[in-house]
Amino acid sequence: MNKANTKLNAAIIIIGNEILSGRTQDTNVKTISLWLGNLGVRLDEVRIIPDEEKIIIKTINEARKKFKYIFTTGGIGPTHDDITSKSISKAFKVKYSYHHEAYEILENYYGKDKFNKGRKKMAKTPLGASLIYNPSSAAPGFFIKNVFCLPGVPSILNSMLGGLETKIIGGNQILTKSLSIRTVESEISIPLEKIQKKFKKVEIGSYPFFRLGKVGVSIVIRSIDKKKIDHCYKEIVSFLKKRKIDIIEKK
Amino acid sequence: MNKANTKLNAAIIIIGNEILSGRTQDTNVKTISLWLGNLGVRLDEVRIIPDEEKIIIKTINEARKKFKYIFTTGGIGPTHDDITSKSISKAFKVKYSYHHEAYEILENYYGKDKFNKGRKKMAKTPLGASLIYNPSSAAPGFFIKNVFCLPGVPSILNSMLGGLETKIIGGNQILTKSLSIRTVESEISIPLEKIQKKFKKVEIGSYPFFRLGKVGVSIVIRSIDKKKIDHCYKEIVSFLKKRKIDIIEKK
Repeated sequence: MNKANTKLNAAIIIIGNEILSGRTQDTNVKTISLWLGNLGVRLDEVRIIPDEEKIIIKTINEARKKFKYIFTTGGIGPTHDDITSKSISKAFKVKYSYHHEAYEILENYYGKDKFNKGRKKMAKTPLGASLIYNPSSAAPGFFIKNVFCLPGVPSILNSMLGGLETKIIGGNQILTKSLSIRTVESEISIPLEKIQKKFKKVEIGSYPFFRLGKVGVSIVIRSIDKKKIDHCYKEIVSFLKKRKIDIIEKK
Repeated sequence: MNKANTKLNAAIIIIGNEILSGRTQDTNVKTISLWLGNLGVRLDEVRIIPDEEKIIIKTINEARKKFKYIFTTGGIGPTHDDITSKSISKAFKVKYSYHHEAYEILENYYGKDKFNKGRKKMAKTPLGASLIYNPSSAAPGFFIKNVFCLPGVPSILNSMLGGLETKIIGGNQILTKSLSIRTVESEISIPLEKIQKKFKKVEIGSYPFFRLGKVGVSIVIRSIDKKKIDHCYKEIVSFLKKRKIDIIEKK
């Protein structure tokens, strides 16, 4: 782990019984993580928790002290199981009330006649929260201090991230290089371990794969230091050549 | 939440930088959760954490006191970043040493000549652990007390679950019924909330979707009580009919 970058970190809290029950496949972790990586923020933990007020409050209050940025997904819609905004108000001990700008946005979007009780709920945030605009379907997310609340629907979440970039103080982009090779992990474990020990500020991962009936290994190296990542990469390529291990793909 | 079933719960701890970095899309949560649901065990939490010994130890020790079953995925291969077995030995304060049966299985599989140092590492478990057999690629998982350690590769993990069923004391299967309807959530939020309040032992979830350019909502109800789930389902269908909301799909 890159200690220099430790403080520019984040956690994601996925609030959703539908993910825990196995009904829905989460894809938001990958989306948010790649977006954060480009901003130089490292995702250090993910928790998936149920739609339960007490658990949401406890998890938020633990996480917001531990990580620089917290992202929640899910639970900001109009139905009874959407309890994120209310729970976060309680976590921060602030009022859960109408956000005037959110109210206006939603009233304009639906029209006065169709702005019913369920829809009005989506205009409520913790007092003092700022909005995260939603170019897809109007209903905004919000952030309060270092906690950013996004919806669960992947396409909507994705459309909202762009507008958030100016709110995140990032760092050096986390760089990645990877190699796919034709071998099995146990053939390369010893030399790879030696290289990892030499390059402490580079994180080397090794992942077996099966493609078209053949096995292989992906070696992935990550760092914010371009020189070190390049140097480490060269050493890996050089030992692979020495061992006559085929490199299938370089990225 | 179904309080009666509270103690038959589980947590998954995903150990893997590749998931946190956004490089790899996790699918094991869904697989394990659906398998647990059939056994009557409720998945109550998931954590995704990095390949770091201290964090693994702390997370395991917190979780194993809180949940009946803990499943870990990842980090049991032969390379330097595979530190799950060693970390769990430390969490349980037992020796990290060769498991004789695992050693035999792997030696037979690879042949004495090719049973190198990296491969031998896969025969090490916490002292006192029992094996979880691997019909795909020999290298076994293991369990110690209520902590079950599985590999990260989805196809291998999947092939190992069958052999685990006799080790899990489950409960009544968690039953699910669902309805896909042609409306938006805010149109049904109030009646759905009323029904949820009436059926405390049934969990009602509501999830918006977009399919072929049209919006809709899936209503998912879960319970271990067949009578209550049927009764609740009927009430939902009846209010949908009253409101003239189209039901697209029933499951």
